[in-house]
Amino acid sequence: MTDVSPAADVSYPADGFTLFPDRSVVALRVNGELKDLATLVDETDAVEPVTVDSADGLSILRHSTAHVLAQAVQRIKPQANLGIGPPITDGFYYDFGVDEPFTPDDVKAIKKEMERIVRENQRFVRRVVSEDEARAEMADEPFKLELIGLAGGPGAGATEGASVEVGGGELTIYDNVTRDGETAWRDLCRGPHVPGTRLIGNGWDLTRVAGAYWRGSEKNPQLQRIYGTAWPTKDELRAYQTRLEEAAKRDHRKLGKELDLFSFPDEIGPGLAVFHPKGGIIRYEIERYMRERLLASGYEVVNTPHITKGDLFMTSGHLQWYADGMYPPMVLDEVVDADGHVSREGQEYYLKPMNCPFHNLIFRSRGRSYRELPLRLSEFGSVYRYEKSGTLSGLTRVRGMTQDDTHIYVTADQVKSELTHSLDFVLQTLRDYGLNDFYLELSTKEDGNLKFIGDDRLWTEATETLREVAEASGLELVPDPGGAAFYGPKISVQARDAIGRTWQISTIQLDFNQPERFELEYTGPDGEKHRPVMIHRALFGSIERFFAILLEHYAGAFPVWLAPVQVVGIPVAETFAPYLDEIVARLRAAGVRAEVDHSDDRMPKKIRTHTTQKVPLQLIAGEQDSSAGTVSFRFRDGSQTNGIPVDEAIDKIVYAISRRLLVNTAEDLA
Amino acid sequence: MTDVSPAADVSYPADGFTLFPDRSVVALRVNGELKDLATLVDETDAVEPVTVDSADGLSILRHSTAHVLAQAVQRIKPQANLGIGPPITDGFYYDFGVDEPFTPDDVKAIKKEMERIVRENQRFVRRVVSEDEARAEMADEPFKLELIGLAGGPGAGATEGASVEVGGGELTIYDNVTRDGETAWRDLCRGPHVPGTRLIGNGWDLTRVAGAYWRGSEKNPQLQRIYGTAWPTKDELRAYQTRLEEAAKRDHRKLGKELDLFSFPDEIGPGLAVFHPKGGIIRYEIERYMRERLLASGYEVVNTPHITKGDLFMTSGHLQWYADGMYPPMVLDEVVDADGHVSREGQEYYLKPMNCPFHNLIFRSRGRSYRELPLRLSEFGSVYRYEKSGTLSGLTRVRGMTQDDTHIYVTADQVKSELTHSLDFVLQTLRDYGLNDFYLELSTKEDGNLKFIGDDRLWTEATETLREVAEASGLELVPDPGGAAFYGPKISVQARDAIGRTWQISTIQLDFNQPERFELEYTGPDGEKHRPVMIHRALFGSIERFFAILLEHYAGAFPVWLAPVQVVGIPVAETFAPYLDEIVARLRAAGVRAEVDHSDDRMPKKIRTHTTQKVPLQLIAGEQDSSAGTVSFRFRDGSQTNGIPVDEAIDKIVYAISRRLLVNTAEDLA
Repeated sequence: MTDVSPAADVSYPADGFTLFPDRSVVALRVNGELKDLATLVDETDAVEPVTVDSADGLSILRHSTAHVLAQAVQRIKPQANLGIGPPITDGFYYDFGVDEPFTPDDVKAIKKEMERIVRENQRFVRRVVSEDEARAEMADEPFKLELIGLAGGPGAGATEGASVEVGGGELTIYDNVTRDGETAWRDLCRGPHVPGTRLIGNGWDLTRVAGAYWRGSEKNPQLQRIYGTAWPTKDELRAYQTRLEEAAKRDHRKLGKELDLFSFPDEIGPGLAVFHPKGGIIRYEIERYMRERLLASGYEVVNTPHITKGDLFMTSGHLQWYADGMYPPMVLDEVVDADGHVSREGQEYYLKPMNCPFHNLIFRSRGRSYRELPLRLSEFGSVYRYEKSGTLSGLTRVRGMTQDDTHIYVTADQVKSELTHSLDFVLQTLRDYGLNDFYLELSTKEDGNLKFIGDDRLWTEATETLREVAEASGLELVPDPGGAAFYGPKISVQARDAIGRTWQISTIQLDFNQPERFELEYTGPDGEKHRPVMIHRALFGSIERFFAILLEHYAGAFPVWLAPVQVVGIPVAETFAPYLDEIVARLRAAGVRAEVDHSDDRMPKKIRTHTTQKVPLQLIAGEQDSSAGTVSFRFRDGSQTNGIPVDEAIDKIVYAISRRLLVNTAEDLA
Repeated sequence: MTDVSPAADVSYPADGFTLFPDRSVVALRVNGELKDLATLVDETDAVEPVTVDSADGLSILRHSTAHVLAQAVQRIKPQANLGIGPPITDGFYYDFGVDEPFTPDDVKAIKKEMERIVRENQRFVRRVVSEDEARAEMADEPFKLELIGLAGGPGAGATEGASVEVGGGELTIYDNVTRDGETAWRDLCRGPHVPGTRLIGNGWDLTRVAGAYWRGSEKNPQLQRIYGTAWPTKDELRAYQTRLEEAAKRDHRKLGKELDLFSFPDEIGPGLAVFHPKGGIIRYEIERYMRERLLASGYEVVNTPHITKGDLFMTSGHLQWYADGMYPPMVLDEVVDADGHVSREGQEYYLKPMNCPFHNLIFRSRGRSYRELPLRLSEFGSVYRYEKSGTLSGLTRVRGMTQDDTHIYVTADQVKSELTHSLDFVLQTLRDYGLNDFYLELSTKEDGNLKFIGDDRLWTEATETLREVAEASGLELVPDPGGAAFYGPKISVQARDAIGRTWQISTIQLDFNQPERFELEYTGPDGEKHRPVMIHRALFGSIERFFAILLEHYAGAFPVWLAPVQVVGIPVAETFAPYLDEIVARLRAAGVRAEVDHSDDRMPKKIRTHTTQKVPLQLIAGEQDSSAGTVSFRFRDGSQTNGIPVDEAIDKIVYAISRRLLVNTAEDLA
């Protein structure tokens, strides 16, 4: 936070209106705390403007819009009781105690009323009240009365959302005051708010209505929650709505079903995906190319079981720190037969949530020399984590996932060059999959926090090395102070997809802890034992998540090499099918996933089917093509290239696959 | 069994000596039962000769040798008590109650004494005795007395090995009678035996001594067991010993350690293998080629989780029939929080022992048309089975294994052509891995056994189809009546390895049961719903087991494409290392696993190291090669080809890999 030099002609104390006449400033940050623009400050205060397009400004805008919503509801339904109304990501909600759920007509009327309140330009006026005053003023609002009880007591802040409304030691009420000086409405609220309702403008909308229990508990009354979104301008609202629509169209769960790629059968359980043939081949192509790149880049392939006795996870520390995220053990009781033989050993087996402990066992399966380092152990290892069912979401948050998990053991001297090698590898490979808009995040230790183990010098050195490597990449570097794991700092690669969303994809993580716990050693050139440094390197996070990201990035229209069906032959009439069968047979012999549509559908229907299925290349042939020994290409965008000699067509297709081209239009294959 | 027409000049009753004067006949089979050669038979009996080289003959030879061993032991240590002494695979053992374990000197003396007894040519003479007579005669043999008690009682036959010694309703003693007519030794025994000890000849040996509890229970006294082997001739004994040595040299557990391929870390648990980098790459190459063949042959790739709720295995029937072979469930208790929310669902998850139920879910994830059949769903699926720890053995019997598991759904009309397709696929692929000596086994239903489900007509048709397909392959077909699974008949492919051992590898199994249990359906050309037939097709059984078979088949000297290190550069002196580095860099760019030995060892030591590691191609270069732009190849057998121009050398190597050549000698790459 920086001090602001106020305009020279302003005498103190002054308020934000005077200091920042710009209409885009909606609040102040005074000595680090958010305050209303009307707050009086003097020259000893550190004051910053909060503009409406900043994160704090947007929150305040949305919170004020929630008040407007609540006022509108009580104008229409005076008997509605107020719950809470906080800002949330991209918007806000407000909960109401009402006898009947809101109807679509109610919502329409509420919006109209909100527009009226915005036009009225009521001022938001803050007023400090005693607990008794608050109780008197909120006598008709049972939920607010409950919050007043909580505000100063031991439960203060414990209830989700409550601290947004009433917090600190001070109780405040915000009055909505009309131009006539009358209080049109009031709410028990911590604030701050925008100065007046007109500032809310028309960049907002109500989005949906849902039931919600008071304070999140089934034992409490059910309220009706109205959700909304709010933005500084109408254009920004429209852009947001378009993004939502675009994201909905690309939703991998929807596309996964439409394109028959995967499912989550009830019989198996939540968060456990099954890949159907078309999803299976995409997944396999993702994995195959990754493995090819790994082998070409000096990585070693290892393979380890999915289960282990608990001992291993005691050594690694997972059972101590991570048991909540693991499936419970498979408990084998010891069985002793009638003759006293132990016919089964007593043991607890666990499904692995991580691959690293297994790789450590391979490292120490025999003596290691410095000549073997860097040793890069790589595995496509399936791991299982017991995520809460509420947090599961399609393929991006699952319980069973396959990681492309590499653990690299290096000498201290090799850390920098190996980090550079890893980052180059990761970025180059991601580009091959079609992602090319990246920034990096550097997650570091929080000074003085004792949870971070290992000595400070090690951290400082390692963090500096990571920073140098990250900066040398030329990519934007965003700091993430305190975001490191307790065992070491990391770089993560964030990729922007086709509609501008960012996804954390690859991570390169230093680990000072596991080499200690597993007592890993190598013999140096000096003949002495040394401890290696360990680097965790994950390209994808998980194949499942990366699959989802690519699916959304491409909106299902994959580059040819990843498309489940790469080429489909469509005869103008069935009599030309044998001609296409021959071409398709040649393509298949060349390793192309090609087929001919022999269904009873007519040609236009076939074209529609395969366009919907996002097949990149449709080969059409009728009288003209078959007599000339040519074919016609039809592309995803409907463009067409006619009369291509068959040999040339096959060459073009094989070329598009081998170069991993994204072919959506005729120009892409020209 | 066939009736034997006795020689015309023999009048009944006659004994086997008269009927079969051939010395290789050691016993008779009379009306299906094994009898001594001295048994008198008449013309109403069905009589067959049992020759020493038949399975029964070998068993009798080994059993008689065990008696000779016991007599020799009691000659040397008269106080030794007799336990049991049955024939076993390739040999026999006898257990003795003695105060001290046998020393190597004891064993030497025992062998000398056995040779003496063989030379004495004592006759084995059978004598039926009453229980009282047996007790009187065996008064000094406490273990034999215990067996007499068991012989007729309710426990008869229940003790392993006991039934070999005393069985049926009749108690018999075999006397060893010298040429002087004296009884030199006797044993309580069911027989039969060879006529005289001389027939035992010199094709036997004692192999090892071990402790063993009487009747297999730790609560009983410990006896000393002497193991031996016995064969009709000295040559056969030698051949057996050579096979053993050869098998020991090829033992995949030994090679796995020597070549640093895999291990079974204690921290993980028995039967759970970890593949080290060199084993990991072999495993990956095995898998990669298999997947390439699958994709080229019309198989679809699917992917399913390793765990599931119990529901799925109830539907499939595994929990009812197979729970003993499964790891116990991971039990998630339902968790309800203070507010009454179910924050975790109560559920039991199981590790999968089979992939088929998951593939059935994919089949029925949407409606299927006859046009989609055959639908071949293929997965490299890791499964876990709780095998008893005593049965685990290296990679051939494990608890965690990856199956190349394909399930094919066909219409009834497609069964035959699909079986042919599957068998062709399997045989051709196995040949590519270097196995090419096969026979087939046809496992069929046992008539009248109610465990086999599905109607008889279905079985008969399916079995006939399998037989036709098997016969059309031109391979030897061995019947396995009653060996079918309860849900359908199967063909299995048995392969002979480099030292003549046979391994069951691939299976093609029809299944009439799961399509019913999962109510699988497709829409036929008639618009009606039909039930598909399911074929389970496993090429390898498991990758782990196939890995072990290939490792033993090749004794670790893999074809170039499978070798973990394909090429190693060995400079005559370090000064020529950079020359080899360049060549190796070109090889690596061509995808070859090549390295240069930069260690401090001298050249001959390097050659020894990489020969021991069974690297197929050593590239050697010194002054002459480096100035001429050539290299010299050294092969596994020590042969060498000098002065090959570098381009040609690279071409040869790439060729050897792409053609999957086994290169052990200079001629193999000529």
